[in-house]
Amino acid sequence: MSDDPAIELAGSVRRLIDATIRTLADDATIRAARQQIDVLTEQLTTKALAGPAGIHHDGRISHVAGNVIIGRRNAIAPPLTMHHRDDGDVETDFTLGAAYEGPPGHVHGGVCALILDHVLGAAVHQPGRPAVTGTLTLRYRRPTPLGVALHAEARIRETQGSKIFVDGFIAHGGEVTVEADGIFLFPRR
Amino acid sequence: MSDDPAIELAGSVRRLIDATIRTLADDATIRAARQQIDVLTEQLTTKALAGPAGIHHDGRISHVAGNVIIGRRNAIAPPLTMHHRDDGDVETDFTLGAAYEGPPGHVHGGVCALILDHVLGAAVHQPGRPAVTGTLTLRYRRPTPLGVALHAEARIRETQGSKIFVDGFIAHGGEVTVEADGIFLFPRR
Repeated sequence: MSDDPAIELAGSVRRLIDATIRTLADDATIRAARQQIDVLTEQLTTKALAGPAGIHHDGRISHVAGNVIIGRRNAIAPPLTMHHRDDGDVETDFTLGAAYEGPPGHVHGGVCALILDHVLGAAVHQPGRPAVTGTLTLRYRRPTPLGVALHAEARIRETQGSKIFVDGFIAHGGEVTVEADGIFLFPRR
Repeated sequence: MSDDPAIELAGSVRRLIDATIRTLADDATIRAARQQIDVLTEQLTTKALAGPAGIHHDGRISHVAGNVIIGRRNAIAPPLTMHHRDDGDVETDFTLGAAYEGPPGHVHGGVCALILDHVLGAAVHQPGRPAVTGTLTLRYRRPTPLGVALHAEARIRETQGSKIFVDGFIAHGGEVTVEADGIFLFPRR
C-alpha cells in the first residue's frame, strides 16, 4: 500500500491538525485557509468510498487504512506501528503532540486507554482472526507527557478456554505511566 | 471563544480527515491537495503557540481548545459537548464517522474507552479543580456502530475519602454497548 498517495496526504493533514490548534495567524488568513480546505475536501470526495475503509476498501486501499490507531490514511492515528517480537510480545514506540492533550501538557488518559486497548489486542490477534476486547482495566500511575518518546508493550499471560488474559503498559524514560490488563475473546465466526 | 475562526477551521479539517480516508481521486489530485495543505500549514504556523494549547493558550484561545475530546480547535475531537444535568449526572450525544474505526464498520473499542474516561471524569470535575483517573474498567457488551446516534452518560456512585467512584456507559438505540466504572482522584495542589 506504500504507493497510495493518500498515505502522504494523511501525514500532511496530521501537521494541519496540529497547526489548527496552535495557530495565531490573523482571522483573514485562517478564514482563507478554511475556504481552500473546503475546496480540497470537495475535490477529494468527488470520487470516494461510500463509508468507512474497513467495509468499503477497494484494491488500492488497505482494509485497515482508516483504523484510528494504525490507519495510514487516518490523520487521527499517530499512526502506531506494532512490532511483533519473536517471543510473541508486541511493542511500539511513538510520540504524541498537541492534538492528544488532556491535562495541560499531558496525554489525555483516554488516549492512553485507546492505545493500550489496541496494543493489548495486537498481542492476541492472529492473521485473519482479530480478537475483540471483553474487559479492559487501566491503572494510571503518573501523568504521560506530550512531545516525548513513549513506549508501549503487551503480552499474553494466560489462556482459559476462549478467554485470553493480556497485560501491558505505556512508559516514558523507563517509568511506567499507565498499566493495563484485559480479557480478549475471539468472536464466533 | 465562538469568535475564534480556528474553531470553524477545525470543522473543515474534520471533513478533510474523513475525505483523506475515503478518497478515490486520481494520484495527481491527491498529490496537488497535499502540496496545498503543506502551504496552508506553513501559513498557519508562521505565528503560533509554542506547544499544546493547555499550557501555551493566550487570551483568544481557551485552555481546553486543544483537548482531544472536547477541544473545538482540535480536529481529532468529535468534539463532544458535555451536558451537566441538575442531578449532577453528565450526558452527551454524538455520532462517530469513518475516522474512528476499529473493527470494520464499528467504533474502535479504544475510542469508546477514550470517550468514557472523559465522560466519567466530567461527572467528577469541579470548576477550576479537574479530577484525574486512578483506575478505569471497561466491559464491552456489543459492538458500537459508526455513523449512528450514540449516547454516553456518567454519575458519581460514592465518595470514600479522596476516592470518587463513578460509572457510566455508551448506548446506541437504547442498548448499552460499553459499560465503565472508575475511581477518580483530586490531585494534591
